[in-house]
Amino acid sequence: MSELLYLEDVFVGQRFVTGTHVLTSEAIKAFARDFDPQPFHTDEDAAKDTFFCRLAASGWHTAAITMRLQIDRGPPIAGGMIGANGELSWPRPTRPGDTLHVESEVLEVTPSRSRPERGFITLKSETKNQNGEVVQLFIVKLLVWRRPEYGF
Amino acid sequence: MSELLYLEDVFVGQRFVTGTHVLTSEAIKAFARDFDPQPFHTDEDAAKDTFFCRLAASGWHTAAITMRLQIDRGPPIAGGMIGANGELSWPRPTRPGDTLHVESEVLEVTPSRSRPERGFITLKSETKNQNGEVVQLFIVKLLVWRRPEYGF
Repeated sequence: MSELLYLEDVFVGQRFVTGTHVLTSEAIKAFARDFDPQPFHTDEDAAKDTFFCRLAASGWHTAAITMRLQIDRGPPIAGGMIGANGELSWPRPTRPGDTLHVESEVLEVTPSRSRPERGFITLKSETKNQNGEVVQLFIVKLLVWRRPEYGF
Repeated sequence: MSELLYLEDVFVGQRFVTGTHVLTSEAIKAFARDFDPQPFHTDEDAAKDTFFCRLAASGWHTAAITMRLQIDRGPPIAGGMIGANGELSWPRPTRPGDTLHVESEVLEVTPSRSRPERGFITLKSETKNQNGEVVQLFIVKLLVWRRPEYGF
């Protein structure tokens, strides 16, 4: 396991790469039945007459898999990955059979002005398929603690 | 069922309110086991020593429930709710037993300059708990089609 990261350990330009996850049509449909039951996410045939032309994963499914990949092997932030807010986009659909991984880069490191024990980092995470195409971009502000030995 | 909405039917200030969804601790833990296995989402006891102090839902679970509520009873957009990009924040945690609903408002309606058959709307969606507190804010740009009888 990687050593846990405190604010002092994080630097602009730091990069993290996760493992991979293969998305099946069964998983796409199961997630969609629970959370996003639209024809282009639940049924191959019905998907043909839609914007997506064929089955595509819910963007929220792509987002959830992105999170899981980062928990399994992403930035090992002490205290966990706790997002406050971010910008999310899905430049292209995630399809059955796609193999996803996540590449992240630290864009900013900002100590809190009001709370000396904590800070924020801005992390840009690109979720890519097996062709290197970005299926999700998420730029998020994450809470990161300072090292406890600094006395806070 | 509500009449389907095309771009011509959507106006700035238009509002939509969904039904409600009660979140159980079992559902919080099940989602987290699949997608966000961090102690504050998977285990009441382990959650005590974390930022959240007690069990909280993954933000992605709140996002997924928000989507489901909007599919069941939200803006009935012709062709489905297809998000391109958005700004997402979680101002406070979602807790076991919370009853969530979503209130949305149209902020902008923009015909596409390059594709006459389509346009975009900007929709602000607040996911609120039973106390009216916002647990998620999502401002998203959605693809919306123009009426087919306009000849596109």
